Amino acid sequence: MKLVTFSTAGNAPTVGVALDDGVLDIVRHLGAAPRDMKALIAAWPAWRERLASLAATQPADIAFDALTLLAPVPRPGKILGIGLNYADHVEESGMARPAEQQWFAKMPTSVAGPFACVELPRVSEQLDYEAELAFVIGQRCRHVPRERAHEVIFGYCAANDVSVRDWQLRTSQFTIGKSFDTHAPFGPWIVTADAIADPHALGIRCFVNGEKRQDSNTSQLIYDCYAQVEHLSKVMTLEPGDVIFTGTPGGVGIGMKPPRWLRAGDRMKVEIDGIGAIENVVQAESA
Amino acid sequence: MKLVTFSTAGNAPTVGVALDDGVLDIVRHLGAAPRDMKALIAAWPAWRERLASLAATQPADIAFDALTLLAPVPRPGKILGIGLNYADHVEESGMARPAEQQWFAKMPTSVAGPFACVELPRVSEQLDYEAELAFVIGQRCRHVPRERAHEVIFGYCAANDVSVRDWQLRTSQFTIGKSFDTHAPFGPWIVTADAIADPHALGIRCFVNGEKRQDSNTSQLIYDCYAQVEHLSKVMTLEPGDVIFTGTPGGVGIGMKPPRWLRAGDRMKVEIDGIGAIENVVQAESA
Repeated sequence: MKLVTFSTAGNAPTVGVALDDGVLDIVRHLGAAPRDMKALIAAWPAWRERLASLAATQPADIAFDALTLLAPVPRPGKILGIGLNYADHVEESGMARPAEQQWFAKMPTSVAGPFACVELPRVSEQLDYEAELAFVIGQRCRHVPRERAHEVIFGYCAANDVSVRDWQLRTSQFTIGKSFDTHAPFGPWIVTADAIADPHALGIRCFVNGEKRQDSNTSQLIYDCYAQVEHLSKVMTLEPGDVIFTGTPGGVGIGMKPPRWLRAGDRMKVEIDGIGAIENVVQAESA
Repeated sequence: MKLVTFSTAGNAPTVGVALDDGVLDIVRHLGAAPRDMKALIAAWPAWRERLASLAATQPADIAFDALTLLAPVPRPGKILGIGLNYADHVEESGMARPAEQQWFAKMPTSVAGPFACVELPRVSEQLDYEAELAFVIGQRCRHVPRERAHEVIFGYCAANDVSVRDWQLRTSQFTIGKSFDTHAPFGPWIVTADAIADPHALGIRCFVNGEKRQDSNTSQLIYDCYAQVEHLSKVMTLEPGDVIFTGTPGGVGIGMKPPRWLRAGDRMKVEIDGIGAIENVVQAESA
């Protein structure tokens, strides 16, 4: 199933199921259903069957062009991203391959919709893209061993770990350069985990203005999604709606000679097999 | 004014004003008032006068020993911490003084109450304390110049930036080692900014089992609170209830030769002049 958070003119955001031609408005059919994705995920066992049956029998309520898709989880409790997690990206970065998983955070204020504008900040010209598979946590958990990690992954999204390279690299800590407003677009929906046969065999590509810049496969992840869950949950409680950015392959702008930074008007597209694509246009931050 | 989030047996958390002998239950007196600190902060101009007048005329509703003080903001949208921000701590760390502000994040799941237990994690024995002044953001803002930064600071707390040193230092990124569950205790209340004459002239101390380990003054901050607001707001929107940990002075366990790690049963106390003290006992994480 593909779950979305969407809004229509003048209405508060709510959740739906994406079909081929539009969105089923869950609350319209099942009045008691949560309007919020984190709440829906937390209550998933109570709603899964009803939503599946609805999706199998009903036509879409609203066409895609009559709604706006928002980030599927508009305000995650946590967004964590792993650095240097594809061998070719480690090589182009000029950094050493980390001896273990290397994590930073993206602040929740950095979330953007799957087709929203991404800001070129006033304070930098070194804006870069990073195509990534993201996964969404499905249940509150701690100390999840690798072999059970699949049980706590609710689903998968396409994501762009937009990065401001000078701010990321001028101290040792990446988090600030990863946390500019609008720099965590993801979506266009959450594909529930049951609909992805193997999250570690998905083609992943990034295009800028139609030019293919990144082209890899999640089979190339150094630490796969399950290893990531195991590691993070040794440290902290993971909660429904937490979003994990799983790393980017080679081909980012900073790795080119000379580096190619994004400019206002550039159109980024991150596409993952079995999930879909998000597209974000770069826009200068307003004065 | 001193604002608290508290709970009493069997009741949901709510907000109050701390007086000398206990807490005024805001909602009991003003039924329409927010029960949630983030909401109260966001609506502060509408409630400030009424709360001040209540606090000046009413006795406490509930004695301190009949309630539990929770973290004043139980679930901040963001918790950011600055590294190496007192000269003596830079020296003991053996690291270079950063050429600019160096930020990491603490995940919202790391919040703990001002008198709650702090976990000694299963996966580490290198648990350490860091006494810090924290401030709480009062309004949604971006691009706040230093000279206006005081306008967006709602108030101040005592905080302990509990750190797991091996996890903090075995990659270049501090965030994971700063984000273990229960490792961000703060409080015991928010002292509103109008009640602190100068946030950069406060004695700050940390005691472990009664032994003074840190003893400094916020006048020694390399980057002060206002410089921190200016820097962060260049990057991201700050929101009511975001919490900023402003750095720790010298005297932490890792700086001793040999390092002195915290053990189960140790009692940490962080005390700041004009604010008060939080006290947290270390407890082994349950199996």
